[in-house]
Amino acid sequence: MSLVAVGSIALDTVINPFKKAVDALGGSGTYFSYAASYFNKVKLVGVVGKDFPGKYLIEMKKRNVELTGLEIVKGPTFRWTGEYKFDMNVRETKNLALGVFADFKPVLPESYKKAGYLFLGNIHPALQLDVLKQMYVRPALVACDTIDFYIKTDLQKLLKVLKRVDIFFVNDSEAREISGVSNLITAGKKLMQLGPKMVVIKKGEHGCLLMTSSWKFSAPAYPLENVFDPTGAGDSFAGGFMGYISTVKKISKDEIKRALIFGTVTASYCVEDFSVNRYRTLKKAQIVGRFKELKKITHFENI
Amino acid sequence: MSLVAVGSIALDTVINPFKKAVDALGGSGTYFSYAASYFNKVKLVGVVGKDFPGKYLIEMKKRNVELTGLEIVKGPTFRWTGEYKFDMNVRETKNLALGVFADFKPVLPESYKKAGYLFLGNIHPALQLDVLKQMYVRPALVACDTIDFYIKTDLQKLLKVLKRVDIFFVNDSEAREISGVSNLITAGKKLMQLGPKMVVIKKGEHGCLLMTSSWKFSAPAYPLENVFDPTGAGDSFAGGFMGYISTVKKISKDEIKRALIFGTVTASYCVEDFSVNRYRTLKKAQIVGRFKELKKITHFENI
Repeated sequence: MSLVAVGSIALDTVINPFKKAVDALGGSGTYFSYAASYFNKVKLVGVVGKDFPGKYLIEMKKRNVELTGLEIVKGPTFRWTGEYKFDMNVRETKNLALGVFADFKPVLPESYKKAGYLFLGNIHPALQLDVLKQMYVRPALVACDTIDFYIKTDLQKLLKVLKRVDIFFVNDSEAREISGVSNLITAGKKLMQLGPKMVVIKKGEHGCLLMTSSWKFSAPAYPLENVFDPTGAGDSFAGGFMGYISTVKKISKDEIKRALIFGTVTASYCVEDFSVNRYRTLKKAQIVGRFKELKKITHFENI
Repeated sequence: MSLVAVGSIALDTVINPFKKAVDALGGSGTYFSYAASYFNKVKLVGVVGKDFPGKYLIEMKKRNVELTGLEIVKGPTFRWTGEYKFDMNVRETKNLALGVFADFKPVLPESYKKAGYLFLGNIHPALQLDVLKQMYVRPALVACDTIDFYIKTDLQKLLKVLKRVDIFFVNDSEAREISGVSNLITAGKKLMQLGPKMVVIKKGEHGCLLMTSSWKFSAPAYPLENVFDPTGAGDSFAGGFMGYISTVKKISKDEIKRALIFGTVTASYCVEDFSVNRYRTLKKAQIVGRFKELKKITHFENI
């Protein structure tokens, strides 16, 4: 079934202790699409300015990312500048220039409105709601993500989104912030009370925790020695998850677990290079390779 | 094969946001022994003062903890006072009174000196070395733990210990401190270069990571909503691990993985109450129950 994703498409300047990337392809919608495209076609919804390099559009199309829902409007593309310090866990936003993203009003093409899977990526919750309302039929699976900024500035709207989604992808710190509790299991339960049937708490280098009312699942991050640029890891994780799950015959517990592992290993490649660079050479077989390796790293036999 | 453990035996005063425990049974050797005793007999080496309550000695004996190596000397038992704040991840040592522990010189009884398994718990690295030297034959498996304090005050002695052990149980922050690197995989590799064939990095609520030169294994913490008192979790983890592994016919990769899971789930009970209280009612079958549950939480099927 088809997969629609809305999110930001940006030009990122990223500084880490080793190197600097200027105006590199970024944004939540981009990372999500590049990751998901290993599994399914992605119908992207977003906006860029006239300054957005055409080569990226060509690349996206080649990767099976449909751009009918991408608006190209007058003005500068959304730009973000961030810096990582030595330990790669602390990110500082140095500059944020919304550009054409400031007035973004997503409009879904007709061909998107019957999609079975919808990912509401990191954009203002009011726009996430708007996208959901434009669907002719409620998709079989709706997932959303958010960022700290919207929790602080428009929690009420975010709560409205949460009421209407099946899966909420959320960072550990955001889960604590929204729920008001420190314990992640309790936080996850409280988040489920807000609407989502499933909460996926992303813990960065510590992996992730999936919770439903009746079962839990936990996966470590794929063990990596060289984390070059963590930007986009969370969106790539959601992309791997949603990309895989949108292709299964029947959504079952087993398939959801596999989706979580595919999210994990797809994201593990993202952080090995700046921007979506790693995906430019990465093959599906390598993703499957780490899937199998992660099985070895986590599985044990009963006594 | 028999299991010898050396560590502190203390009377702890623990304050958390809900309650306070005064002069409760604690210490690394104690937690280790209580946890390991679910799997094997433990030959404990340690020291207490004359003020140490006899009821605890009776309880230890009943739990299959041999006390031939426990010295009872004039003076006060080691006392530690700590406080946990609301989020349970930050511990503050309020008071430390070494008492008889200050002049502790472990002396191994003859019956201990041929043990096949040795755990060098949290005591000064010079004393850990001393215990190892007293063994008639080098045990089949030697593991050690340490604390931040000895890394800061006597790293050279600790490095001598590391040269001679098979397994190093270490916190993530300590692993980073000793290795000087932030990435845990790289840190683990550097620690292995110091001697241990196996490094087990304990990450608290994020579980643990086991590394050898040829394979890795990762386990999440058992998901708990109510963490009442994290004191002793690391020692209980090592206790479950060493207790189990000391009973297997042949130490294999599969058995080591099982040992790590037994360490994880045995420790998960420790934190549910003050001191070793939870172990006073806990049955082996409950440990096995969480072992099986953790399998459900982490296992997934290949595509």
